[in-house]
Amino acid sequence: MRVPIVVDRRGPAPLHRQIYEEWRRGILSTRFAPGDRLPSTRDLAAMLGISRTTATAAYDQLMAEGYIESERGSGTFVSRDLPDVHPRMTRAADDSSARSPVRLSKYGTRLEPASVRPTPAAGIIHLSNPVPDVADFPFPIWRRLLARQLRRVAPATLDYGSHGAGHDGLRQAIASYLARSRAVRCTPDQVVIVNGSQQALDVCARVLIDAGDDVAIEDPAYLGARQLFAAHGARLRPVPVLTDGLSVAALPGKARLVYVTPSHQFPLGVSMTLARRLELIAWARTRGAVIIEDDYDSEYRYDGAPLPALQGLTASVPVIYVGTFSNVMFPGLRLGYLVLPPDLVEPFTRAKWHADRHSATLEQAALADFIREGHLERHIRRMRRRYKRRREILVDALTRHFGRRVAILGDAAGMHLVVRFASPRPFAQARRNGVEMTSTAPCYVGAPPPAEFLIRFSALSERAIREAITRLG
Amino acid sequence: MRVPIVVDRRGPAPLHRQIYEEWRRGILSTRFAPGDRLPSTRDLAAMLGISRTTATAAYDQLMAEGYIESERGSGTFVSRDLPDVHPRMTRAADDSSARSPVRLSKYGTRLEPASVRPTPAAGIIHLSNPVPDVADFPFPIWRRLLARQLRRVAPATLDYGSHGAGHDGLRQAIASYLARSRAVRCTPDQVVIVNGSQQALDVCARVLIDAGDDVAIEDPAYLGARQLFAAHGARLRPVPVLTDGLSVAALPGKARLVYVTPSHQFPLGVSMTLARRLELIAWARTRGAVIIEDDYDSEYRYDGAPLPALQGLTASVPVIYVGTFSNVMFPGLRLGYLVLPPDLVEPFTRAKWHADRHSATLEQAALADFIREGHLERHIRRMRRRYKRRREILVDALTRHFGRRVAILGDAAGMHLVVRFASPRPFAQARRNGVEMTSTAPCYVGAPPPAEFLIRFSALSERAIREAITRLG
Repeated sequence: MRVPIVVDRRGPAPLHRQIYEEWRRGILSTRFAPGDRLPSTRDLAAMLGISRTTATAAYDQLMAEGYIESERGSGTFVSRDLPDVHPRMTRAADDSSARSPVRLSKYGTRLEPASVRPTPAAGIIHLSNPVPDVADFPFPIWRRLLARQLRRVAPATLDYGSHGAGHDGLRQAIASYLARSRAVRCTPDQVVIVNGSQQALDVCARVLIDAGDDVAIEDPAYLGARQLFAAHGARLRPVPVLTDGLSVAALPGKARLVYVTPSHQFPLGVSMTLARRLELIAWARTRGAVIIEDDYDSEYRYDGAPLPALQGLTASVPVIYVGTFSNVMFPGLRLGYLVLPPDLVEPFTRAKWHADRHSATLEQAALADFIREGHLERHIRRMRRRYKRRREILVDALTRHFGRRVAILGDAAGMHLVVRFASPRPFAQARRNGVEMTSTAPCYVGAPPPAEFLIRFSALSERAIREAITRLG
Repeated sequence: MRVPIVVDRRGPAPLHRQIYEEWRRGILSTRFAPGDRLPSTRDLAAMLGISRTTATAAYDQLMAEGYIESERGSGTFVSRDLPDVHPRMTRAADDSSARSPVRLSKYGTRLEPASVRPTPAAGIIHLSNPVPDVADFPFPIWRRLLARQLRRVAPATLDYGSHGAGHDGLRQAIASYLARSRAVRCTPDQVVIVNGSQQALDVCARVLIDAGDDVAIEDPAYLGARQLFAAHGARLRPVPVLTDGLSVAALPGKARLVYVTPSHQFPLGVSMTLARRLELIAWARTRGAVIIEDDYDSEYRYDGAPLPALQGLTASVPVIYVGTFSNVMFPGLRLGYLVLPPDLVEPFTRAKWHADRHSATLEQAALADFIREGHLERHIRRMRRRYKRRREILVDALTRHFGRRVAILGDAAGMHLVVRFASPRPFAQARRNGVEMTSTAPCYVGAPPPAEFLIRFSALSERAIREAITRLG
């Protein structure tokens, strides 16, 4: 009898494992058929020059897993109850390249690629990095709060939450924080915790949008939101943004949903006036539309008094208020929230439960403490001063270097501003001089202005800002 | 002039805030119309008997927010550019009860309520609590690993991930852990990190299922999976489970997806034999179907050798392997993973990115360390011994108290087993004697057996197990 398998004495895997693998592969592919006889362990040991214990160990595992069976007195065979898959296996090699790609759902085919973040190369200053400055985040405090939660090891911290809406203490802390800082009118019951504003918008789309439904969005708009609604099959109805916010007069005749960023429009940075907000509410009331208010960076306001949230202006029109901790804490935390009209709490809680049960409990509990003990608002105040200073340096530098050849938009608030250059030259210049900068063009459905760029100053040092604008100029 | 508003000197809110709120509410409701004149701050102060500074503070805020405007020389007015929303506002009181409920999407209407977890009442023993025992989890180690990650404060830990697939170190650790322990064949690139197996299944449904598509599921099945596919509008094709696993012969003529739990079928606990696995693969190959292998508790095997993952048996049929850390760590962690065929990595990564960007980075980094440093496998070994002992005590107690009046299923592995009583009496008994127990009936699409129950022993002390079965008997 010829030796049907080969082993490599100097290979990294133990010999019994190699023998097991050889037989297994042979059975799964085409070489050995159900009913084929195997050499006895004694014969195999002799043929391969190995100990019988080794051969037996391999056969035992093959037997335990159902590849082979032994019949008392007559030997060991490839299991006879294995299906006869050989003919098909021979035709198609067992390799994923042998089959056609898996067909995706409509949703699957509509998904845009993840926006790839540029890896910061040495010497390059990235002017559009969409992150807060985490260097100043009070990590010792955060570590202490997490550790405190971990020491408690209460089942409530480790277990599944009792529902999808999130940690009750955090919901309370958020409701009272929003009442204080944003004049949002809600009870803790109306707050649902999610993994950042992206999931907030995704749950909105899932629960409220069927493919083909009209969704009004700002034009230009936050790309993450537009791509998300498009992936859900919404018929997007772009609405121009004017200097006082969304052009309510240009809203379509009907829409299931209208998505707005009234505090600090993304990307243009304008603030929607009270008049436009009330008009939007009146429009939504007559159309039966839901308003999504994405208040992604309202915490940072530098000039003038902040306008309270649109949500607080009405209870008779369904407004969904969306917030995130990515900008005031750090993005890796993955926590955000929805404030919902009472009748939407139950369906949204169900949707979150079916999507991924609930957000990480430990972080939610620590964040509740972080807010309650005043650390969040202290941190925001500190960062507001810091970002304000960076904004000033940026605006100064832009004005000094470009004078009337640049228009600056949306610098009264937030973590970014928009610049419109008189010519596209600074952009070409930027690349050559080691400055990365993102155009706002992808945010537009309609024709974008020729040389409009996003400058996110939150994560840049004062020196980097000065240096970058000098290089541009 | 009559005083148009009232303030409460002994109320909790400062007077200027009360004045602001009164005017604001009056303007937003129906009382004051655009163009209405306000008393001067001097008159208001006199009328209300307050200081002029207080009145001015209130007017300043109203002006900043756009409610009122002042005209030099002629006084202060309700802003004239506010929309005339009064008639509509009068008809419908500004209250969410005044409107009809928001219409939900089809998905929204299909969502089942979250399964409410019973709050453990004093003296009640809950025999079906679906959680691991967290009392033995090495929290000091976990705390140390989290703290170490927090001390590093690397942008990579705090920032957005560069893509939706998850922390690269964790993907590597999982790929090598699965190769070792489950004979899963994959590279780290094929691993996508999600928030537990629920999100894993949700992403599968989103990317692969359109409403009306056929999805074959086990009958009985894991309720979380069945409800999820149903919510996505799948046409569910229940397939009976036999003693050797899913009845491949009973599979429908076609299906986009087949969902199986081959290691330890949920709920029945049977293990799918190699023969049935190969048949299932052959079936999926000819039908172009995707197999989802949910390996939710394969880590705990007590009798006999564990069968390696079905995923490792083929590369030419698309098998999606789903795993979770909820059972081997703790559910509140919210981390799980998918192992994907190469052509599905990109669409699934997109779907995760659009759903919620990525899972919490800090936890992912700490978990990578936890696995790499061997803590996970040590913990699993410890818990396997512990659960095995609990399983034995449970089986002993059941046998002693019920003898031939109970059949025990699926006790070779996992964190639960199933009991079939000869009569429904023990269940009625249970309630009276302070034992909660869940019927498997909701897991069935077809007619359920009359007295079949789920006993989850993982979170129960040995004493509680003995006591509970005594009470049942």
